[in-house]
Amino acid sequence: MPQRGRVPPTLEAVAAHAGVSRATVSRVVNGTPGVRAELRERVRHSVAALGYVPNSAARSLVTRRTGAVAVVIAEPDTRVFADPFFAQQLRGIGHRLAAHDTQLLLVLLEGRDDYDRVDRYLAGGHVDGALMLSLHAEDPLPAMAAAVGLPTVFGGRPGWSGAAGEPGPLYVDTDNRDGARQAVRHLLDRGRRRIAVITGPLDQTSAADRLDGYLDALGLTGPDPALLATGDFTAAGGERAMAELLAGSPPPDAVFAGNDLMASGALRTLRAHGLRVPADVAVVGYDDLGPAAWSDPPLTTVRQDVRHMGELMAELLLGRLGLAEGPTTPLAPVITPARLVVRDSS
Amino acid sequence: MPQRGRVPPTLEAVAAHAGVSRATVSRVVNGTPGVRAELRERVRHSVAALGYVPNSAARSLVTRRTGAVAVVIAEPDTRVFADPFFAQQLRGIGHRLAAHDTQLLLVLLEGRDDYDRVDRYLAGGHVDGALMLSLHAEDPLPAMAAAVGLPTVFGGRPGWSGAAGEPGPLYVDTDNRDGARQAVRHLLDRGRRRIAVITGPLDQTSAADRLDGYLDALGLTGPDPALLATGDFTAAGGERAMAELLAGSPPPDAVFAGNDLMASGALRTLRAHGLRVPADVAVVGYDDLGPAAWSDPPLTTVRQDVRHMGELMAELLLGRLGLAEGPTTPLAPVITPARLVVRDSS
Repeated sequence: MPQRGRVPPTLEAVAAHAGVSRATVSRVVNGTPGVRAELRERVRHSVAALGYVPNSAARSLVTRRTGAVAVVIAEPDTRVFADPFFAQQLRGIGHRLAAHDTQLLLVLLEGRDDYDRVDRYLAGGHVDGALMLSLHAEDPLPAMAAAVGLPTVFGGRPGWSGAAGEPGPLYVDTDNRDGARQAVRHLLDRGRRRIAVITGPLDQTSAADRLDGYLDALGLTGPDPALLATGDFTAAGGERAMAELLAGSPPPDAVFAGNDLMASGALRTLRAHGLRVPADVAVVGYDDLGPAAWSDPPLTTVRQDVRHMGELMAELLLGRLGLAEGPTTPLAPVITPARLVVRDSS
Repeated sequence: MPQRGRVPPTLEAVAAHAGVSRATVSRVVNGTPGVRAELRERVRHSVAALGYVPNSAARSLVTRRTGAVAVVIAEPDTRVFADPFFAQQLRGIGHRLAAHDTQLLLVLLEGRDDYDRVDRYLAGGHVDGALMLSLHAEDPLPAMAAAVGLPTVFGGRPGWSGAAGEPGPLYVDTDNRDGARQAVRHLLDRGRRRIAVITGPLDQTSAADRLDGYLDALGLTGPDPALLATGDFTAAGGERAMAELLAGSPPPDAVFAGNDLMASGALRTLRAHGLRVPADVAVVGYDDLGPAAWSDPPLTTVRQDVRHMGELMAELLLGRLGLAEGPTTPLAPVITPARLVVRDSS
């Protein structure tokens, strides 16, 4: 590390020390691929020996590219780590970004203080773009990105539209409303008549759209309060919501939960109450991630290809950055299909 | 966004457009705290209107600081997201970094290709330092960080020592060997005589040290092959390992698993074999994260304060960067104590 007060060594000094060209040092320091490992090692050695501090300045000034993309998840770490949805989506995103030699940086947000810091980070030119997941209606992140012109793609349909005259936001989602309709029609087909719903947070479009699909299938314009409970997309929330629904009289004979985690919580509550699934209460979830197939009984659910959605998000952003390969993906929102998967819980 | 071929607008142009000083623009663009929200908004508006692309160049050239720290986890996302250990450690790290207005960037590594890209990212001056978790013996990350002089703190005792004459690596760990000794002595105290061990990957010091503690308590210099099975710190690995151990004759009357996830997998296998815990086989885990208390039966385990370890790692790194507040933390490895927590599984 350079000492305070000492003139920092120049790129030229590193080149002379390593016995390579200035261009080679620049390529190693700027992380340009294609420098032989042996040369790269020699430059690294000289960098260390002289205490040259490489930084992104030179590269950013020339290319205005950092080679990194932030994935911002507006949820506390406890939730991000507990829901396989995020792991799957990150896997898809990371896979596509890696294929374009772009580094994924995961940024989690919890409290108000975090927003200020993340705002400054996103405004600081450290990343070429951002993918934003799990936003809630009033989330200030989109405005932050727009204010500094940071190319951004959203996971899930945003709950706002672009300002007049501006292009709308880019996003990837499934057809949540149609998926929910399929789930509830399936329960109707099985002869269920008191079908309850456990929703996610209704300030998220995924939760609101799934509730709308539930209402569509039942031909209702608004829910029966005795058959609606709000969870928070967590297993514990599903447990609590199911207990609320069972307190009603008569209890429901089926429940559509807005994701698999809440459905698994509902299964636990039903078991604790000595109720049989599906004989007494049929249960349908949403997502079809690992836990759906492993739960007891295995869960009927609505499949969305979460990993593929992550890949599509990354592709949209790469397209927006002018880095897409092959046939150009249209720069427009993508809605992927949802498909009912019937297992033993219904 | 600036158009190709157009001369990018200057900081001065933004200042003139916003009607503020150049210094104010610079502070907003560089993310320096303390600019009034109203001024910040005005500058942001001008930045967007002119298509000025702020980047980290100016700031990095002046301060040589980016305000960001990378947390690099050398595990695939499936493992990082399945083990609450990482969520807890990240929570501790994020909490301390946030208190120093430093952004945490999570970087996951899976295959060989990822290493090359992460190497270039770490060498590119995008972050002020790195925290590296869950390294395996032959991991090239430490050498990468050293080659570019990136200040680094490790989670868990590294399996290598520094080069001769250099200071050793900075790290935070628990006393894994002592924790394992406590676990196995407890099983001996309960009258168990055929105590098996399920280890994590033995190219990680945490796994190797816990095996050594097991041997210490039993007064052995090497394990009985019939009583040792290797897991991979996952629940599925624990399930498989327990099945292997039960195939031996006579089967063990106790098992010490190297973490709670493997212990929970072992519980599942024992249940599937119709064996009672602890009557037939006592089980002890390691970590004492949430799942230990919720498992059936609740798990006797060795508690390490994982979140606090994360905080200590962040503090060491901040100290190394000259950013620590208050009484200076000595820049030396920290070993936190391990403590047996007895529950129903033993």
